[in-house]
Amino acid sequence: MPGAMQDWTMRVTHVIDHAARESGSREIVTYWADGSETRTDWAGIRRDALKMAQALEAMGLKKGDKVATLAMNHSRHLVSWFGVAGMGGVLHTVNPRLFEDQLEYIVNHAEDRVLIYDAMFQPIVDKMRDRWPGVEHYICFDSGEHATAFEDWIGEQDGEYEWVQGDERDPCMICYTSGTTGNPKGVQYEHRSTILHAMAGMQPSALNCTAAAVFLPVVPMFHAASWGLPYAGAMAGLKFVFSAVNDPAVLDMLMKREEVTDSAGVPTVWLAHFQYCDKEGIDLPKLRTATIGGSAAPRFMIERLMKNGTRVQHAWGMTETSPIGTVGGPTADWDELSFEEKVAKTMKQGRAIFGVELRTVDLDDRSKVLPRDGETSGALQIRGPWVVKRYFKADEDAVDADGWFDTGDVGMLHPDGTLQLTDRTKDVIKSGGEWISSVELENAACGHPAVAEAACIGMAHPKWDERPVLFVVKKDGEECDDKGIIGFLSDKVAKWWLPDAVEFVDDIPHTATGKISKKDLRERFSDYRLPE
Amino acid sequence: MPGAMQDWTMRVTHVIDHAARESGSREIVTYWADGSETRTDWAGIRRDALKMAQALEAMGLKKGDKVATLAMNHSRHLVSWFGVAGMGGVLHTVNPRLFEDQLEYIVNHAEDRVLIYDAMFQPIVDKMRDRWPGVEHYICFDSGEHATAFEDWIGEQDGEYEWVQGDERDPCMICYTSGTTGNPKGVQYEHRSTILHAMAGMQPSALNCTAAAVFLPVVPMFHAASWGLPYAGAMAGLKFVFSAVNDPAVLDMLMKREEVTDSAGVPTVWLAHFQYCDKEGIDLPKLRTATIGGSAAPRFMIERLMKNGTRVQHAWGMTETSPIGTVGGPTADWDELSFEEKVAKTMKQGRAIFGVELRTVDLDDRSKVLPRDGETSGALQIRGPWVVKRYFKADEDAVDADGWFDTGDVGMLHPDGTLQLTDRTKDVIKSGGEWISSVELENAACGHPAVAEAACIGMAHPKWDERPVLFVVKKDGEECDDKGIIGFLSDKVAKWWLPDAVEFVDDIPHTATGKISKKDLRERFSDYRLPE
Repeated sequence: MPGAMQDWTMRVTHVIDHAARESGSREIVTYWADGSETRTDWAGIRRDALKMAQALEAMGLKKGDKVATLAMNHSRHLVSWFGVAGMGGVLHTVNPRLFEDQLEYIVNHAEDRVLIYDAMFQPIVDKMRDRWPGVEHYICFDSGEHATAFEDWIGEQDGEYEWVQGDERDPCMICYTSGTTGNPKGVQYEHRSTILHAMAGMQPSALNCTAAAVFLPVVPMFHAASWGLPYAGAMAGLKFVFSAVNDPAVLDMLMKREEVTDSAGVPTVWLAHFQYCDKEGIDLPKLRTATIGGSAAPRFMIERLMKNGTRVQHAWGMTETSPIGTVGGPTADWDELSFEEKVAKTMKQGRAIFGVELRTVDLDDRSKVLPRDGETSGALQIRGPWVVKRYFKADEDAVDADGWFDTGDVGMLHPDGTLQLTDRTKDVIKSGGEWISSVELENAACGHPAVAEAACIGMAHPKWDERPVLFVVKKDGEECDDKGIIGFLSDKVAKWWLPDAVEFVDDIPHTATGKISKKDLRERFSDYRLPE
Repeated sequence: MPGAMQDWTMRVTHVIDHAARESGSREIVTYWADGSETRTDWAGIRRDALKMAQALEAMGLKKGDKVATLAMNHSRHLVSWFGVAGMGGVLHTVNPRLFEDQLEYIVNHAEDRVLIYDAMFQPIVDKMRDRWPGVEHYICFDSGEHATAFEDWIGEQDGEYEWVQGDERDPCMICYTSGTTGNPKGVQYEHRSTILHAMAGMQPSALNCTAAAVFLPVVPMFHAASWGLPYAGAMAGLKFVFSAVNDPAVLDMLMKREEVTDSAGVPTVWLAHFQYCDKEGIDLPKLRTATIGGSAAPRFMIERLMKNGTRVQHAWGMTETSPIGTVGGPTADWDELSFEEKVAKTMKQGRAIFGVELRTVDLDDRSKVLPRDGETSGALQIRGPWVVKRYFKADEDAVDADGWFDTGDVGMLHPDGTLQLTDRTKDVIKSGGEWISSVELENAACGHPAVAEAACIGMAHPKWDERPVLFVVKKDGEECDDKGIIGFLSDKVAKWWLPDAVEFVDDIPHTATGKISKKDLRERFSDYRLPE
């Protein structure tokens, strides 16, 4: 009997309205690229978002139009999230680290009409402008030397504005995958999926967004919606500390001065932070929780943070999943675990949050669902309300008939629901009908004192189908040979996993987001032949 | 562009599926009325719910049919929440403390076809059976002396069942208000509203449902959906400890033995617990959080629990609001507050959780919205996705054109969003055009050493419209007179608030839910005339 409870369309404008109403004076701190700092609050963010929505309409933008940002984390970028959604538009957060061809493709593919950028990305804008014929307006988040300044632009409006209404399945954001093969693909986040994702993400076993939290998200707002933090944080009315630069000295200063309780980012951020504190001979900041995603945190990083009193948790997800799929929140048995057991558990990817569902299927036969036994690895699949159904402008769904999206990850599920990732489906090596994890070989090799970086790929083999070859970059001034590496690995992986060859290289190619690009490595060694 | 993200109908079957899949072995402990105990887990709850859904269909029940329960908190009651919803039915949790006329009315009004009850309520069933002509089947949650036993009933099924699908706006539960005036009114909770309410309720600043929590909900499952805890707890995969009896000795034993971290209930539960521990000379259990709702906890209760290391928080809501409106979760400034300030803050009702919106309006002119200044009292109104729109079978909406539901409470909103309740609209006393809070007068009077209970009502006055009269029950063996009471009050309330008369009575009437029944008090003293 519909109508028993109130009608309430899930629109992200509810989120900013709530934050401004219930936590209006809670601060939003920004450290800008030029070293200056500003403070606003949730009431201020909403006020500016209303003005921005007006300014966009004044430019002639209409419901459904796309507005791109090319920006780091700061309060004006946050304003644009709610301002664009509030006028019914779709925010396209462009990753400035993409290659030029990708930048050209995605802005044109999304049909962005406005682009708002940080002054530090002026060189990108200068280079790309002619290749973005559809972009009608350029606004600069900082000063207006080359374009209208954001503050001047919205300053012309009075903020007397009513949010545009619409369907809860309307898109409010579009994020593109960084796509290691083919063109990037656009994933549209809906008002509804965004709200459900943020409500699930703020729960204590996920991002634990309390009203008292002081959150410094290092994960960029241009990367998978900054894991939904701007929305979840607004729902909780927490305090945000943003830094438009990722200099560890700045992050360290902000974390200590603002008494930051929570942070979220990729592992390399912490690597730089460790190095900075060690060099300066100072303590790490005392965070309550460090959520780490993007790639797996190494054991020593987890141990060091834990010993510093910081709870570490992996979050796993991808652009296609809004992005949160799993989070390594405290499990029921947590307090009974030894330090070693806690570290071992933290190394894994955590558990599915309410809303999404995971399964693993056989790598050779995707119709065969694998047991959750903590032993059997397979292709990881996911479904749920904040998982992609169809990429933007695609002709067909990205999921199977039952809604399962194939993540491209290889992993296993444990009986308690914990996800453990082992590889990517395109990187896992098939040898004699069995699978070898390239990532596990790389991680093991990185434990060798002379290895700076290692990448493992499968090479065609007449008898075994594929065999692993390990590419190694030596640390400066360190020496080692292939026998030494193989010997080092021999008690760490199964004998039949040992690489057929170890090749020393000066560098290993990386993607725009800093991951090892095995595609480029394979191309570079396309003529490679395994030793007899 | 609908279809970018996956379709996902919000049905409460997702909740039990998630709990069984991700936290299948997490325990559900029950202490039964006969003193026995059982343990099951989330996988077991789902297995039994599937069987129950089958058993209901085998009886001929169809989608939309109502199933009533007359039961305390236990694992089989929990099964029925998901079993009924899973076959597309609507669960009607009947409050066994209602008066016979109310029991007759609500079961017939809801058109319940099945009634499942605890053996302890056999006397109610025996008395009511002839007055419930529509109830076709009686099942007993305990043994089957007078009706089929629940375990036998579902034991006939194999559990091979697919949940019934449907619209997310379908109802899954109906709860009746205890209605102090007129007949009780039915509030239907929808699948959608239930999921949104539970997702909001599990957040850290509300019920803080962590995976590691061990939750003993004292609030009955027949009272406003036990504040949504069965759903929120399933989403989190926490451990539930249920007691079918509210004996403080049992609750104390369970809390200590099972290492309960969280509890929720009305203040009187803690009063009984204090008395028990004091009598036995034992410590209170060391809970992490005690959430208190239904009525306001007195200061000494808050102080004692806080000093015992337990966070106390009020939750405010009502049957019409699913029920959570506000929760007194830790605010941003919490750590900086003194103990006294923390107590003062805890005395208030907390802040609105994301999804619902509060406002206060003038008691004389409901169109006049009052400022959130922490000073101006008015009629409290609420709206949001889990707030009633229209009562079951009602001819018109229970809300105004903008969706505002008038709660019947009187209170003020503070600038930080905190709600402070002061009275009920029907009990607040209008004197000379100004409002006197009957509740504040009662609370002040209860501080007098000789006062066991006090109730204040407004009596008609030729000049002032109404003037307060205080009815007092003396403590056994204590003596006091009207002058003593007035004198005691004179430095605690404004002079013009002082009652025109104090009347000593042997008892004060109460409602079925244990609150003071001012309606009955007014009737009893309908001939009362104020002294000249």
